[in-house]
Amino acid sequence: MATKVVVDLRSDTVTKPSEAMRASMAAADVDDDVRGADPTARRFQEEMAALMGKEAALFVPSGTMGNLVSVLAHCDVRGSEVILGDDSHIHLYENGGISTLGGVHPKTVRNNSDGTMDIDSIVAAIRPPGGGLYYPTTRLICLENTHGNSGGKCLSAEYTEKVGEIAKSHGLKLHIDGARIFNASVALGVPVDRLVRAADSVSVCISKGLGAPVGSVIVGSKAFIDKAKILRKTLGGGMRQVGVLCAAAHVAVRDNVGKLADDHRKAKALADGLNKIEQFRVDSASVQTNMVFLDIVDSRISSNKLCQVLGTHNVLASPRSPKRLVLHYQISDDDVQYALTCFKKAAEQLLMGSTELEHLAEQLLMGTTKNSYGQ
Amino acid sequence: MATKVVVDLRSDTVTKPSEAMRASMAAADVDDDVRGADPTARRFQEEMAALMGKEAALFVPSGTMGNLVSVLAHCDVRGSEVILGDDSHIHLYENGGISTLGGVHPKTVRNNSDGTMDIDSIVAAIRPPGGGLYYPTTRLICLENTHGNSGGKCLSAEYTEKVGEIAKSHGLKLHIDGARIFNASVALGVPVDRLVRAADSVSVCISKGLGAPVGSVIVGSKAFIDKAKILRKTLGGGMRQVGVLCAAAHVAVRDNVGKLADDHRKAKALADGLNKIEQFRVDSASVQTNMVFLDIVDSRISSNKLCQVLGTHNVLASPRSPKRLVLHYQISDDDVQYALTCFKKAAEQLLMGSTELEHLAEQLLMGTTKNSYGQ
Amino acid sequence: MATKVVVDLRSDTVTKPSEAMRASMAAADVDDDVRGADPTARRFQEEMAALMGKEAALFVPSGTMGNLVSVLAHCDVRGSEVILGDDSHIHLYENGGISTLGGVHPKTVRNNSDGTMDIDSIVAAIRPPGGGLYYPTTRLICLENTHGNSGGKCLSAEYTEKVGEIAKSHGLKLHIDGARIFNASVALGVPVDRLVRAADSVSVCISKGLGAPVGSVIVGSKAFIDKAKILRKTLGGGMRQVGVLCAAAHVAVRDNVGKLADDHRKAKALADGLNKIEQFRVDSASVQTNMVFLDIVDSRISSNKLCQVLGTHNVLASPRSPKRLVLHYQISDDDVQYALTCFKKAAEQLLMGSTELEHLAEQLLMGTTKNSYGQ
Amino acid sequence: MATKVVVDLRSDTVTKPSEAMRASMAAADVDDDVRGADPTARRFQEEMAALMGKEAALFVPSGTMGNLVSVLAHCDVRGSEVILGDDSHIHLYENGGISTLGGVHPKTVRNNSDGTMDIDSIVAAIRPPGGGLYYPTTRLICLENTHGNSGGKCLSAEYTEKVGEIAKSHGLKLHIDGARIFNASVALGVPVDRLVRAADSVSVCISKGLGAPVGSVIVGSKAFIDKAKILRKTLGGGMRQVGVLCAAAHVAVRDNVGKLADDHRKAKALADGLNKIEQFRVDSASVQTNMVFLDIVDSRISSNKLCQVLGTHNVLASPRSPKRLVLHYQISDDDVQYALTCFKKAAEQLLMGSTELEHLAEQLLMGTTKNSYGQ
Repeated sequence: MATKVVVDLRSDTVTKPSEAMRASMAAADVDDDVRGADPTARRFQEEMAALMGKEAALFVPSGTMGNLVSVLAHCDVRGSEVILGDDSHIHLYENGGISTLGGVHPKTVRNNSDGTMDIDSIVAAIRPPGGGLYYPTTRLICLENTHGNSGGKCLSAEYTEKVGEIAKSHGLKLHIDGARIFNASVALGVPVDRLVRAADSVSVCISKGLGAPVGSVIVGSKAFIDKAKILRKTLGGGMRQVGVLCAAAHVAVRDNVGKLADDHRKAKALADGLNKIEQFRVDSASVQTNMVFLDIVDSRISSNKLCQVLGTHNVLASPRSPKRLVLHYQISDDDVQYALTCFKKAAEQLLMGSTELEHLAEQLLMGTTKNSYGQ
Repeated sequence: MATKVVVDLRSDTVTKPSEAMRASMAAADVDDDVRGADPTARRFQEEMAALMGKEAALFVPSGTMGNLVSVLAHCDVRGSEVILGDDSHIHLYENGGISTLGGVHPKTVRNNSDGTMDIDSIVAAIRPPGGGLYYPTTRLICLENTHGNSGGKCLSAEYTEKVGEIAKSHGLKLHIDGARIFNASVALGVPVDRLVRAADSVSVCISKGLGAPVGSVIVGSKAFIDKAKILRKTLGGGMRQVGVLCAAAHVAVRDNVGKLADDHRKAKALADGLNKIEQFRVDSASVQTNMVFLDIVDSRISSNKLCQVLGTHNVLASPRSPKRLVLHYQISDDDVQYALTCFKKAAEQLLMGSTELEHLAEQLLMGTTKNSYGQ
Repeated sequence: MATKVVVDLRSDTVTKPSEAMRASMAAADVDDDVRGADPTARRFQEEMAALMGKEAALFVPSGTMGNLVSVLAHCDVRGSEVILGDDSHIHLYENGGISTLGGVHPKTVRNNSDGTMDIDSIVAAIRPPGGGLYYPTTRLICLENTHGNSGGKCLSAEYTEKVGEIAKSHGLKLHIDGARIFNASVALGVPVDRLVRAADSVSVCISKGLGAPVGSVIVGSKAFIDKAKILRKTLGGGMRQVGVLCAAAHVAVRDNVGKLADDHRKAKALADGLNKIEQFRVDSASVQTNMVFLDIVDSRISSNKLCQVLGTHNVLASPRSPKRLVLHYQISDDDVQYALTCFKKAAEQLLMGSTELEHLAEQLLMGTTKNSYGQ
Repeated sequence: MATKVVVDLRSDTVTKPSEAMRASMAAADVDDDVRGADPTARRFQEEMAALMGKEAALFVPSGTMGNLVSVLAHCDVRGSEVILGDDSHIHLYENGGISTLGGVHPKTVRNNSDGTMDIDSIVAAIRPPGGGLYYPTTRLICLENTHGNSGGKCLSAEYTEKVGEIAKSHGLKLHIDGARIFNASVALGVPVDRLVRAADSVSVCISKGLGAPVGSVIVGSKAFIDKAKILRKTLGGGMRQVGVLCAAAHVAVRDNVGKLADDHRKAKALADGLNKIEQFRVDSASVQTNMVFLDIVDSRISSNKLCQVLGTHNVLASPRSPKRLVLHYQISDDDVQYALTCFKKAAEQLLMGSTELEHLAEQLLMGTTKNSYGQ
């Protein structure tokens, strides 16, 4: 019997490890990395440091820990403030850990629709030097590239440099949440080291679009990574024979960076296809990388219901509004076409009379309706 | 020799205790308040609770501690988030203590020019129930009344109620930073207990416009105050024979609430007078309480220089731009007139040629130029 | 009618301000101390810095804040550890604020019965340099002089120096919780500045044996006090016209340091008298300053009951076991004699048959039994 | 050429994954575990919960995170205190994270030489109910089984039950740092679920003696694990296709629990052999599980030098004094015999004249001296 095909558009975190990754895990030369002795971890970290153009690198179990360790390393003195986007991942989706665990005070600046923050607003948010009695001390600026909540838009090297200059001239550090920095590099056609040159630290996710099973890497100066190592241990992120994960991560970087351009192409195809369906609209110009933000223009269709019906066709999407659809290398061109078919069908089904819909639902539950794809 | 008269417009925190306050401190019946035994503290706290329409009250050494204790009492579980204005005192001028010391994560909402936050924006900032893996848990909304950075504007009872309903319906608490809540009450003509009815806690400053030498009071339910007492002790705000301060605070409330209307009238007079000076402009409509925000429309006059020259005339102002001028009961109508004369003179001096100005400065330093007032 | 005389042996925090203190509060020349402008606060702080032999001083609302601010100022980097006595006030009775609010990790060393910690144990508790992956970084050692839980025993200048040398040689700071450092200075006959010479900071309470209504002072280097000022503000301990409290504190230091020797003499008299009562025992040799730790050797007498019966005679004591009795300048020699009479009487009453006792209790409740003193 | 044989006695964290583990990683059925969708992770967690006799389980990247998450979950309210051993791993070797990140205040109780804390001392350390103004609130007791710093000694089920009863009767939780709980279970002959029955949570390490490459598991009630999941995410321990690690962990538990008895036997053999070497002494009675604590009785032999010379023979040990030697399933009986030969030889070498020693060192560096084993 054929495997049930599922087109999972919920996130690029859902990829399964490739055969090459699995083989590399099985064969990895490992040792106790808490003692710094794991050869595979060391090699992968050196490789990532070189690739990102920084002195040193550290493997961490997640992007959240990558950002947390980075912010805490830069803000190690009590009374630190960090400037970051009001629509950034660190601010919105990381449990407020920088405050909750680290006691760091966030000062948000408005994110524009392209993921940038106005340079003037950043400068205005920096506390006057000397701290004084009323203010925490600004110690860090955070950027996010690509910027998730703006639909995966890219910050240019020029913009990043400009923020870096401001940071430097005010004695601040610059951290980039580069969970999808390779997507930005590929989309912009700018080498990734060039793109993060102005940053004191970058957190790079290997288990999103690059498809490794687990892990992120942070890069920066040797002194930064030394601090980060202690923080990682404190948080409980020091792992023993972690080379098994680093081996897979190495394969992910080696094999999959080159496939990101395809993801971006497929995202555009999905966007274009959705635009041809009356009930939906996508701002195609905003599709820069591997994300598509969908608007439902027919008010009779709710996001929740749409996701439910798509689910009956094995197309998975998250009921956010505007719904975010994410491409990755395990979604093929055919999958995109199938998904488009299902979106169209789902829209039709949702506009039927309710009795018809209930009847359909019943049929689906009883398995008498086959979807037309892959089974 | 006569005392040098100084017109201090920098803040209403600069008042000196009145003779009645001094007498009350000297005569206060006191005991160890850490043991809850100080009769003057108890009486003042009961009085304030009654006045504010709440079950209980607690005296604290400062408004900063009042807010900090309140936020921490409402957010006593790790992983709490508070919604507050991006231009609020707690967010900007209290050292980020809620995060730095308390690990509470702030989620700011844009403050409108009238000190409110849009109701919709507040609702949008509330995290979905259940918390989930990505979010801290929203536990508190903070308002500020009067709102300092908008020039002392008043939040209406209706607006406050509306926010209170949102809080209640989402299981959140509502705290009001009521450092100048009596100014709001007087300006709006609404009894203060009515104005804070929707709040679970209020921090009220007695050492600003009310003129007590030291202290704020927080009010709320008995359960809230019980928590607050422990937090006050933890922070080091438990004081022994604190009745000496409460005695003065009692006099401040008794004698000076009635004088706030005068402060507001004087603020309007100052605003009107400044508007008559070509180089300055005040949005008179925005003067609701005891603050005047001054714009300097002549670009040749810098805020810093203006303050320096005013200082030579014993008129004190803070070089913020737009400059904030604050009235209080120890500034008389004559003081306002004198200050206006000095603003006019200062503007003229600053527009003189620089040699003239240097000459003037020399004279001032040598004491050969008398100011025309009070000596 | 005569005032009811109460002999309050619960603590030296219960003193009432003297007439001189009250007059000084009423007359104090004050200004906004948050701006550093209060002349009385400045003068008192300079005076205390000079007296303690340090560069600078800062007035804080309580001893708890004095210790908290000091520990946090020395441990301003995340991942700090402090070495302190397992029977110290900071560890036991300050709400764990250094961890709870400050994130500082305590490493306790056993307190000997004389309040010291073994030098070897202190050295052993210091984390190896470099920190490493497993340890926080030791940054501070705390002593307590006099040591409360050992009955107010004094740490010698020599011991303190030795600890200071260890601190210095390991790059650590030394803080002294000197809540009752003047008692130690007087009892040892060593000038107070000599006694704290080795310390980087000292917290001195003015509202215990010295009798000021409110406040402590911390002293140290100018750089330390600059940090402490920001921390005091963050905690909410910045007070406006605080000169009213500093004026009283100035009088307390001026008038009452000289009376501490009397307190110590009276403590010895109380100890000797109690030793003459069969049911009680005091280790007289351990009475070095103003505290007496009482053992009840007759197992039929509970500490709680004893305190209750003493209370009916207006002698107040805390039902700790061994019970701590604290002398201060508002307890006269006559009061000590009266208290002894009451202890004797209470012991007798508690050894009566229970019906007799109940009868007595009834009489007391009905007011028909007069105590023999002062009414 | 044969692989260089190394006998690594430094820790049981140094084991390499077995072939079966490697195969399981390569074949694991995985999905996004942050969404709770990874089937291998779910199965392993259910398996561990069942094995430990608890409702639910959670995989975490390290024992440090297991303990940190557990302590923070039980102590989620600000102002919490935890009672734990002064010689416990959490207190000494986990960076003080419970305070540094979690603001939890530790109250240590002396660890006896068998790893227990006296029941009376635990009871005495519990803060009086109601908290009050001076104390944090005791919320948790932590035990460690086996107890590392006492040489891997076992806490009995009876002792654990007794502590559990105290916890329960005071409304506290009981957490067991069970990094090596299976060693205790095997050594005591008590089923592991019986051994932790009294505990509200247990942290179990899979990457120590059980040999998995990465990971620990925490177990407890469903409500506890729900809290723990959020904390794990906040700390950055949420991993995506973590089934690759759980697959190996599953094999580790399946294959290696049964081998722990061998490790204990080999530890005894090592101890006995060392006792036959004049310069060393081991308290054989204290060898209960897989650790041997070595005393060097000849003062001419330093721990550091000994480790260096052993290293030249490919026997790895940590220069702690008394030196801790740890057995695990990848050290064979032959390895133990080889290690003993090397200890004997090393002692002899270190007692030679220094010129002889230098000569030997040279030879070793030049590779002309072969060790007599396995090459």
